[in-house]
Amino acid sequence: MTNIAKGLEGVLFTESKLTFINGSEGILTHLGIPIQEWAQSSTFEELSLALLNGQLPSAAELAAFDAHLKANRAIPEKLVEEIASFPRTVAPMQALRTAVSYLGLFDPQAEETSEAARRDISIRLIAQFSTIIAAIARSREGQPVVAPRSDLTHAGNFLYMLTGKEPSAEQTRLFDIALVLHADHGMNASTFTAIATSSTLSDMYSCVVSAIGALKGPLHGGANEAVMDMLDEVGVPEKAEAYINAKLDAKEKIMGVGHRVYKYFDPRSRVLRDYAEVVANKEGKSNYYQILETIEKVVVDRIGSKGIYPNVDFYSGTVYSDLGIGKEYFTPIFALARISGWCASVMEYARDNRLLRPDAVYTGATDAHYVKLQDRI
Amino acid sequence: MTNIAKGLEGVLFTESKLTFINGSEGILTHLGIPIQEWAQSSTFEELSLALLNGQLPSAAELAAFDAHLKANRAIPEKLVEEIASFPRTVAPMQALRTAVSYLGLFDPQAEETSEAARRDISIRLIAQFSTIIAAIARSREGQPVVAPRSDLTHAGNFLYMLTGKEPSAEQTRLFDIALVLHADHGMNASTFTAIATSSTLSDMYSCVVSAIGALKGPLHGGANEAVMDMLDEVGVPEKAEAYINAKLDAKEKIMGVGHRVYKYFDPRSRVLRDYAEVVANKEGKSNYYQILETIEKVVVDRIGSKGIYPNVDFYSGTVYSDLGIGKEYFTPIFALARISGWCASVMEYARDNRLLRPDAVYTGATDAHYVKLQDRI
Ligand SMILES: CC(C)(COP(=O)(O)OP(=O)(O)OC[C@H]1O[C@@H](n2cnc3c(N)ncnc32)[C@H](O)[C@@H]1OP(=O)(O)O)[C@@H](O)C(=O)NCCC(=O)NCCS
Ligand SMILES: CC(C)(COP(=O)(O)OP(=O)(O)OC[C@H]1O[C@@H](n2cnc3c(N)ncnc32)[C@H](O)[C@@H]1OP(=O)(O)O)[C@@H](O)C(=O)NCCC(=O)NCCS
Repeated sequence: MTNIAKGLEGVLFTESKLTFINGSEGILTHLGIPIQEWAQSSTFEELSLALLNGQLPSAAELAAFDAHLKANRAIPEKLVEEIASFPRTVAPMQALRTAVSYLGLFDPQAEETSEAARRDISIRLIAQFSTIIAAIARSREGQPVVAPRSDLTHAGNFLYMLTGKEPSAEQTRLFDIALVLHADHGMNASTFTAIATSSTLSDMYSCVVSAIGALKGPLHGGANEAVMDMLDEVGVPEKAEAYINAKLDAKEKIMGVGHRVYKYFDPRSRVLRDYAEVVANKEGKSNYYQILETIEKVVVDRIGSKGIYPNVDFYSGTVYSDLGIGKEYFTPIFALARISGWCASVMEYARDNRLLRPDAVYTGATDAHYVKLQDRI
Repeated sequence: MTNIAKGLEGVLFTESKLTFINGSEGILTHLGIPIQEWAQSSTFEELSLALLNGQLPSAAELAAFDAHLKANRAIPEKLVEEIASFPRTVAPMQALRTAVSYLGLFDPQAEETSEAARRDISIRLIAQFSTIIAAIARSREGQPVVAPRSDLTHAGNFLYMLTGKEPSAEQTRLFDIALVLHADHGMNASTFTAIATSSTLSDMYSCVVSAIGALKGPLHGGANEAVMDMLDEVGVPEKAEAYINAKLDAKEKIMGVGHRVYKYFDPRSRVLRDYAEVVANKEGKSNYYQILETIEKVVVDRIGSKGIYPNVDFYSGTVYSDLGIGKEYFTPIFALARISGWCASVMEYARDNRLLRPDAVYTGATDAHYVKLQDRI
């Protein structure tokens, strides 16, 4: 019997200095620094630059990067019009995939693949993703698109463009933490897809567009929206236990739990749970948080022994929801953060590129021959 | 030392009944039938259906499929306008990536991922790719877009839409053979990228858009255009030997030779060479063919022992060029054929899906801590 690495589980295909995960102990570090410290002390801007550079930036480097991002927030007017012309019913991730592909058509650097060009494009994409995603959301909701401001942070400006209102310092901070938690995560499926595209020496836009397509799926970035669907289905905390038990009895997958690498609590889910709890306590426990608490308990009790624990998507939705963001935009917000990980990972892989071309075990017919149409039975 | 499967070479990640390759003997079969027989006796339509179905179709099935393709050739008027509005200078593969992503926005079935929905979308994409690619080429050349005809074969209709002139039976046949030769090729980088996207349970459009991005790279689909660039650089047959020797001495890669799986002649390159020869002989040997003959000889002599032989892209360009097609459109034409392999492979993988999520060896810092900005050196 041939050995098949199904899902490429545990297959090591490259080296990386960016992210380390210990799945059995629930440890995640970027550049060796625990995710909890990044969440506590850093910002999305800083982590993005650290990932691109492979080291913590100096104050001057960070200031320059921040200025660069701010200067690049605007998107071409043609793209704003394009987004506004998309059918209202379209899935936001399809809109994002199309908008980013379209943006590439107007970038004179799009076809360049030098390290310097990849870096320039990455910085622009990190800046412009927020404007694109906000424009998609506003257009879908039939509201006028809000132009970016350069006096707000990346997180603050996004919330401002999305809602049309300047967010509080607390809201900005909470959203920034969510972005930090989602910025990178090793060889996850979307980053891996970006690298597969890049491995043919294709361009940055193609890599990022591929990654958006992969993130979109419910087994990956789409899970946070699916968690919210589940919460809405459950409705009230009293029904949560029976709901999950029934699902597990039916051998259905619960969204927001389970992970290829973590076989214990995803540390990002712990950070998010703490914030979700704070927010929920403030206005009296929200239904969502209480339902999640119950689901977590049932899941860990019943299938924790299989290594199934809450992942990052489990609590992120309630946090976004508390910030007034509709669930259709949760996966685009995941992309808003992960763009940094995609770009940094593609750039790292490109420095020692090898075409990604695995193989399949052939189990089909052998020694067959073409049969003329009239002779087929 | 940890074992790294660089480029995933030789890593088996799934089973497949579609395509078999024996790289050391230069054998390629689809459904067990040698590629030479497909090229000799079949058509692109038939091979596409056979790949989707996993078996040779009956006459009735093929007729129904053909009618289905013909009925779906038209693309939305909005998409034609969209393509016409792209900047003239844009790379055709960027235009294709964007146009296909855009098409998805107008497909009410786009988000469906059932087997039946995937199949419907696949058939439409196979049909519409030809119209989209022809529209991109015509628009870039500043010529009016030509509407599809339903009385021509897939190959004939494409050439008609591209050139505005009905092709001869001979031209149609030659182009059809080229499509057959490119329709599928196992777990090549673009098909693999499509599968990686699909593995998150993402939708067909996202899979195909990802694949376009991967095919675009010069190590994969972009090689046929690069071969033509090389031929134009060499100019006359007398200069070919010295040119290649200099490249090999400088350890530069020659485009159109070498392959992850074939370590001997790619059988598709043999079929194409034979046709290229026939075409060249007709009008007196063309420069291109003579240059390629010389390059092949030098490459096989000098690095054949390393397993470097001509691949499918080596002769395909001259065939397209003889059909009057500009080299900027060679890679989109590769996509025109490979769409069948992408769709069939995604559908096969989806029947026994597992999230693709490999890992990297972490070689970065450990036990680091976040340092406040003002404390950094
Ligand atoms: C993320 C995920 C795709 C990883 O899957 P994987 O590594 O391929 O794991 P497998 O599907 O092989 O699952 C291993 C076992 O755990 C079970 N399992 C995995 N995820 C589960 C879930 N979400 N709910 C219930 N059971 C689950 C499987 O049924 C399987 O059980 P078995 O051994 O009895 O058959 C999977 O856990 C999942 O679908 N989770 C829900 C989607 C989600 O939240 N994704 C976001 C990840 S950040
Ligand atoms: C297709 C391709 C990416 C496969 O590459 P791979 O499996 O990763 O092979 P490697 O790059 O590891 O090459 C193995 C050896 O062959 C050499 N080699 C590979 N392709 C070569 C080429 N096109 N010209 C010259 N030497 C080549 C490599 O330099 C290497 O030599 P070394 O062992 O002395 O260092 C590669 O052959 C290539 O770049 N070909 C040109 C592009 C092309 O035509 N692509 C279309 C494929 S259908």
